[in-house]
Amino acid sequence: MPQTISTTLSPEGSLEVLSQHEVNRLRDTSSSGLHDLLRRCALAILNSDNMTDDGLAVMEAYRDFDIEVLQEDRGLRLKISNAPIEAFVDGKMIRGIRELLSSVVRDVVYVYNEIQTHPRFDLSTGEGTTNAVFHILRKAGALQPSLDPSLVVCWGGHSISREEYDYTKRVGYHLGLRELDICTGCGPGAMKGPMKGANVAHVKQRRSHGRYLGISEPGIIAAESPNPIVNELVIMPDIEKRLEAFVRVGHGIVVFPGGVGTAEEILYLLGILLHPDNKDIPFPVIFTGPASSADYFKRIDEFLAYTLGDAARERYRIIIDDPTSVAKAMRLGIDEVAEFRRTHQDAFYYNWRLNIDRNFQEPFAADHAAMAGLELHRNQPTHELAANLRRAFSGIVAGNVKEPGIRAIEAHGPFRLHAEPDLMSRLDELLTSFVEQGRMKLPGSHYEPCYTLG
Amino acid sequence: MPQTISTTLSPEGSLEVLSQHEVNRLRDTSSSGLHDLLRRCALAILNSDNMTDDGLAVMEAYRDFDIEVLQEDRGLRLKISNAPIEAFVDGKMIRGIRELLSSVVRDVVYVYNEIQTHPRFDLSTGEGTTNAVFHILRKAGALQPSLDPSLVVCWGGHSISREEYDYTKRVGYHLGLRELDICTGCGPGAMKGPMKGANVAHVKQRRSHGRYLGISEPGIIAAESPNPIVNELVIMPDIEKRLEAFVRVGHGIVVFPGGVGTAEEILYLLGILLHPDNKDIPFPVIFTGPASSADYFKRIDEFLAYTLGDAARERYRIIIDDPTSVAKAMRLGIDEVAEFRRTHQDAFYYNWRLNIDRNFQEPFAADHAAMAGLELHRNQPTHELAANLRRAFSGIVAGNVKEPGIRAIEAHGPFRLHAEPDLMSRLDELLTSFVEQGRMKLPGSHYEPCYTLG
Amino acid sequence: MPQTISTTLSPEGSLEVLSQHEVNRLRDTSSSGLHDLLRRCALAILNSDNMTDDGLAVMEAYRDFDIEVLQEDRGLRLKISNAPIEAFVDGKMIRGIRELLSSVVRDVVYVYNEIQTHPRFDLSTGEGTTNAVFHILRKAGALQPSLDPSLVVCWGGHSISREEYDYTKRVGYHLGLRELDICTGCGPGAMKGPMKGANVAHVKQRRSHGRYLGISEPGIIAAESPNPIVNELVIMPDIEKRLEAFVRVGHGIVVFPGGVGTAEEILYLLGILLHPDNKDIPFPVIFTGPASSADYFKRIDEFLAYTLGDAARERYRIIIDDPTSVAKAMRLGIDEVAEFRRTHQDAFYYNWRLNIDRNFQEPFAADHAAMAGLELHRNQPTHELAANLRRAFSGIVAGNVKEPGIRAIEAHGPFRLHAEPDLMSRLDELLTSFVEQGRMKLPGSHYEPCYTLG
Amino acid sequence: MPQTISTTLSPEGSLEVLSQHEVNRLRDTSSSGLHDLLRRCALAILNSDNMTDDGLAVMEAYRDFDIEVLQEDRGLRLKISNAPIEAFVDGKMIRGIRELLSSVVRDVVYVYNEIQTHPRFDLSTGEGTTNAVFHILRKAGALQPSLDPSLVVCWGGHSISREEYDYTKRVGYHLGLRELDICTGCGPGAMKGPMKGANVAHVKQRRSHGRYLGISEPGIIAAESPNPIVNELVIMPDIEKRLEAFVRVGHGIVVFPGGVGTAEEILYLLGILLHPDNKDIPFPVIFTGPASSADYFKRIDEFLAYTLGDAARERYRIIIDDPTSVAKAMRLGIDEVAEFRRTHQDAFYYNWRLNIDRNFQEPFAADHAAMAGLELHRNQPTHELAANLRRAFSGIVAGNVKEPGIRAIEAHGPFRLHAEPDLMSRLDELLTSFVEQGRMKLPGSHYEPCYTLG
Repeated sequence: MPQTISTTLSPEGSLEVLSQHEVNRLRDTSSSGLHDLLRRCALAILNSDNMTDDGLAVMEAYRDFDIEVLQEDRGLRLKISNAPIEAFVDGKMIRGIRELLSSVVRDVVYVYNEIQTHPRFDLSTGEGTTNAVFHILRKAGALQPSLDPSLVVCWGGHSISREEYDYTKRVGYHLGLRELDICTGCGPGAMKGPMKGANVAHVKQRRSHGRYLGISEPGIIAAESPNPIVNELVIMPDIEKRLEAFVRVGHGIVVFPGGVGTAEEILYLLGILLHPDNKDIPFPVIFTGPASSADYFKRIDEFLAYTLGDAARERYRIIIDDPTSVAKAMRLGIDEVAEFRRTHQDAFYYNWRLNIDRNFQEPFAADHAAMAGLELHRNQPTHELAANLRRAFSGIVAGNVKEPGIRAIEAHGPFRLHAEPDLMSRLDELLTSFVEQGRMKLPGSHYEPCYTLG
Repeated sequence: MPQTISTTLSPEGSLEVLSQHEVNRLRDTSSSGLHDLLRRCALAILNSDNMTDDGLAVMEAYRDFDIEVLQEDRGLRLKISNAPIEAFVDGKMIRGIRELLSSVVRDVVYVYNEIQTHPRFDLSTGEGTTNAVFHILRKAGALQPSLDPSLVVCWGGHSISREEYDYTKRVGYHLGLRELDICTGCGPGAMKGPMKGANVAHVKQRRSHGRYLGISEPGIIAAESPNPIVNELVIMPDIEKRLEAFVRVGHGIVVFPGGVGTAEEILYLLGILLHPDNKDIPFPVIFTGPASSADYFKRIDEFLAYTLGDAARERYRIIIDDPTSVAKAMRLGIDEVAEFRRTHQDAFYYNWRLNIDRNFQEPFAADHAAMAGLELHRNQPTHELAANLRRAFSGIVAGNVKEPGIRAIEAHGPFRLHAEPDLMSRLDELLTSFVEQGRMKLPGSHYEPCYTLG
Repeated sequence: MPQTISTTLSPEGSLEVLSQHEVNRLRDTSSSGLHDLLRRCALAILNSDNMTDDGLAVMEAYRDFDIEVLQEDRGLRLKISNAPIEAFVDGKMIRGIRELLSSVVRDVVYVYNEIQTHPRFDLSTGEGTTNAVFHILRKAGALQPSLDPSLVVCWGGHSISREEYDYTKRVGYHLGLRELDICTGCGPGAMKGPMKGANVAHVKQRRSHGRYLGISEPGIIAAESPNPIVNELVIMPDIEKRLEAFVRVGHGIVVFPGGVGTAEEILYLLGILLHPDNKDIPFPVIFTGPASSADYFKRIDEFLAYTLGDAARERYRIIIDDPTSVAKAMRLGIDEVAEFRRTHQDAFYYNWRLNIDRNFQEPFAADHAAMAGLELHRNQPTHELAANLRRAFSGIVAGNVKEPGIRAIEAHGPFRLHAEPDLMSRLDELLTSFVEQGRMKLPGSHYEPCYTLG
Repeated sequence: MPQTISTTLSPEGSLEVLSQHEVNRLRDTSSSGLHDLLRRCALAILNSDNMTDDGLAVMEAYRDFDIEVLQEDRGLRLKISNAPIEAFVDGKMIRGIRELLSSVVRDVVYVYNEIQTHPRFDLSTGEGTTNAVFHILRKAGALQPSLDPSLVVCWGGHSISREEYDYTKRVGYHLGLRELDICTGCGPGAMKGPMKGANVAHVKQRRSHGRYLGISEPGIIAAESPNPIVNELVIMPDIEKRLEAFVRVGHGIVVFPGGVGTAEEILYLLGILLHPDNKDIPFPVIFTGPASSADYFKRIDEFLAYTLGDAARERYRIIIDDPTSVAKAMRLGIDEVAEFRRTHQDAFYYNWRLNIDRNFQEPFAADHAAMAGLELHRNQPTHELAANLRRAFSGIVAGNVKEPGIRAIEAHGPFRLHAEPDLMSRLDELLTSFVEQGRMKLPGSHYEPCYTLG
């Protein structure tokens, strides 16, 4: 049994006062209620200093953990029972963790009270979905109209080598020196390194309001707990809205080495950027890593060229082992974004102009049938193939680290994917290389594939 | 033709970024659209330094005025055409006015997008209404959980004598010295004096975040423009929600001499406080004015005792010509409120506990039929009589200064009120005294009664 | 006996921590010590809401008043005994007064520890004196390099009519609307009105860091207590350094109607501006008042033309009864100052370039011999006549309101001034008009001249 | 030739406006002037990212470097010629470095204008010296009366192993989690690690005003450049005032492994704490390092017991390989300090009560004669032996890294120290162990002893 602490505390930061109705909904433990969702997300936050990506194991270890929302004279109070002791210093919760906890309460309340029950957000349409993403980000305070474009989204594996991790820190450092901010998906590895590096640079530059924006979703947060450097946290309702949030608030994207999750993100991004409507929209994308990862990006590059064509290559740049060049290129790219938005009277804080096809917005529920039914062949428009490949990778991520996915695999065995032979062998090669490079799991654990190809 | 200015400017203060859908709704000039509402409220703000309470005349004088919302790179821009020159200094809009303008946009967007179309806010129920009031205030940032109780609501006439006006300033000064903040309904007279006085005291006390909260509604704002000392402005959808906002956010109430509007507010307040459920809830209420208004309060006091019984007298205190005593008593009363809320774990920022009967929440549309149908006799429960008297006074206010009311009177002659004879004569006496004391209109204008009794 | 309060409190604002040596000096009550000086200045601050300009009477009334400096864990504490009750609200000192009190301690410590004993500040030279003025202002935080020129010095009588007072408020209001700040000599009348007016305008413009700079000196502070709107207070060691501070930190000067003190200031200012070295330095000077004071300025104008020549008229502008024009002209004038300083790489915060003749820097001790010995004839260079006239007026101010002057008059009768006949009669005329217009004393008191001409 | 940049920039942070006299003194390049001193300190700041402790080599490498102070409209400007390119990002100086540069200008101006020429600071007396230290720290803004005790001074080697460095970071992290701030002597190694660790903890605790106070002196700054995490920098005039500053502003001290400099600091500290006057003053002192440094502290401990007696041991605690315990013990110790100061009405921000013997205040000029003349035997009072040992170590530091010391050794060979035989052999042993453990120089360089024992 791990050591725990129980306490009652005031939320910090952006959590507004709640109405009695909202408090009641949070307390509601029935199936339609939010309590279980809140409990799971809160535990992920409180567990953020523990190095594990096994969400189920965390839920097991702290099965007595609970969180309750109380209404008091000064506003809200949170009653926490049996929380991981690592979230506290001498019995007092670390303030950054308290803030993240408040963000979780805020988003759970908002999404489930204002978004999901509101007729205006028709999530079956592109406009309704984009609108919902906007409203959730706005509620979280992530849309700040007074700021110049500065937000670099960093993607990459949560399970990377020490060398790669140090490299992500160095890139973050050089981005931070150039007054750029970091947005990642939370969690360890490539999601943490750039923030740590940028933080040191921001201290040197006295950038006291540096932004470390984490965008997560309930299914992934347990496996990828936000580290406490994150000073803005948003919980999107699902993986597709989380991806849309990245591309609408980010002004440029750096991709570090990673596994299937990173591959999913790359395919999502290129699938969108290759849409004819988006042809003229500037959006700097840089793939980078230390010298040892040159081969990794060579494989990705070849796979992308094979599946999406050479045009895809014009949308990204590969820079190996040169953090300063990455940072300079990103700074220039973002300056172009600023210029473009100014010219077109577009908002800096949200990229309304980007056209995102419904294929990339619709939630993909990764079960055995859906995975088996994916059309994986080149006899379809490029952006549809990109969408299907994205789904395939998404399903593997689910089978690796998400609770329902893991349970489904436990019950029915690995997902089965079908593809045309040539694509199949290239896909196999790519996935195998991820396994060999240890990119599927945190170091030290053995990886048991959750899929078969055939 | 008055002098005007056309310009484009950025909003200030609490206006968040808007979604494209919200911008479109604001632009929509069709009958279901918000544009006309926005235009009228905006003009009231821009006209704030003009001393008139004739909303129709203002709309006439600036019939070319327009406001348009634009989306630009840095966020929103407001395009203003033919605005009153008084809102500008050397061609630049006064910043306080710019902030109030932004508040108007915010509330118009929020109320009509989030509240009125949302199934959760069932405005036909008490809970839904109270919830809506809470959400509008929260959106406006008026609910601040970190603050100790300090908000004194000041009611009274917008058309008062210089002596009375100076008295309201002195009371505001002594409240401000005691670190109390001011909330009024906006406009001149008793709604402005306490803010001016408190501002001087706050400067002396270096209370740099003193609150000057104005709560208005679309029907009254043209006649009672917020003065630019107001640093928080909320536009409630109607008069009843505005009154509910006063009693739920205020921690105590000072009533200065006034006319029918003030009488309406007093009856609303006492009708609620006399409800058995609210018996034990502390809520300091002080009627005060200079020596010359002693008689005024004597009449009110007698009318209240006659209509609502002696019990009503326990809910308020009359202090004549003694600003220091008013301020000390209010400070003590609010300290008791703080103590009570602490003991009961109630929020400081919103008085959820107060029971407000549906009679006081339902909007009263003052037309000739409704006015004629009011039951004005003592053969009914006290709180129902209070509610009906409140409606009668509300209708007279509408006939005096609100656009639809004025138009209805122009078309069909004065409202006709029916009451039992004794009550009728006392009511007549009270209203006549208001007319005689010049409390129905701004000084200098002749008052033509909008009602007949019989 | 007036009501008093004794208490111990922490200083507020700009008072830094003191060394033990500095605390000891403050405690030192011997003749060389600072305690008596501190006590007198502190009482003036605490008495600021009392309307009297009789410093001696104040010292009498509160002869038991005392202030002591204590060293405690959190820094300094001030022990106050028998202080005027008006400085407190319900037993707690008004925070603005607490800040001013801290400024007094700071300046008394600094001037007497760092300036007067330091070999570098050779006060017998122009450079040493100007350097000392610079250091005292810097210590007080009054030199703020990040600010654009905005400081309007307002001079004028402390004893003016209600109409004139209201006019100074209106001028202050229009200056404040144009983002200008106010610097005065503290005290009531024309020293208070512009600050009050500017404060209202700053509230409307949300200029939260508006500056209300008061510059006083130990001899005058008892008669002209700073009102608590003053949020920066500097105590210069004597009247000449106070005048130098005005012209070196101010970016423009507005002169309202006043008495001999105002005349002294005008002669000081023109004496400097007419120096050939200062010919090309822009410095906007506006004499203004309501319509009723047109004659007052006509007399001043004629006296100046007679004594200093027509060239003097090019250095000021007279604007009667038009606050908006005053404010616009001052805004333009200060913009020119900014332009000039930029072109010449001069600091915005201190006018080093201005040449101030030793005649205007040397302290003038107004005793009977010195007054009798003043050379008042036109047979000398213009700037020397200006300097001597300045001294004559300065002596009359001393005889009117300063403790040593009053005592000297009590002992030896009025000061005797000698001048050439024509100048004498014009001077007599001017002074008599001041007496007739009640500009020598606060309203209600009878004025007994402290001088004779002949 | 290293790459350089020339530019003109505005100072940042605490640098106040300067008078023309102060600017002139800074420009003065004659022997009595400050220009050379300023130039050397400025270069040390600009070179902060270069890893070398060879100040002379730095001066050689950048012999064309220069800094000039200009007076402009917005205040001061600094003209920098041929500065190390590492201080810039894409041509713009890193803001933290700009702030440190401003601190250097401030202190050079202040110390040499206000302290050294002022009769009040009689540096030949204890009181005058302590007063001067106080004034320099106050000028730098390092005395903040509103703060609770939180300042942990960290001492230790600038040349330590990676393992030891990581350990200092971990200790800093756990101190930071407990809301403690860090003060060091600037430079790499044990002076940098605790700040980096504390910074991460402060980010997690959202302690946005965490203090990283560096206290240096002109002789050491070139060898121990402040790293840019330092957000408050003070340049004391000499090593003895720097040591006094540490013990008067620090609330507790952590000593990490180091070389002679660290030994000097330990002897200084214990020499003071063992003075009978200081017996009852709480002052937590902890020696700590990773497991591998257990032997190092064992040797120090034995040397201290031998030279200063067992009583010395009661003044420090040795904790090996346990950062959490170090932090908890320091937190408790500092809470005791707070309690003691409160009880005795002592200031939190400056330990006036501590008695520092003149032996520890008088600057020790380490030349061959002075070193040869040191009395190193146990036939003298403990605190005098401590003072002499401190001087011996101080001289060795000078011979190792300070410019005059290095030049003296180059000219005349190693310093010669004389001691009684037993003490000599223990001293030899201790120094030899420092050399063997590589604690005399940065890794990679060969150490040539600057002393001989005999």
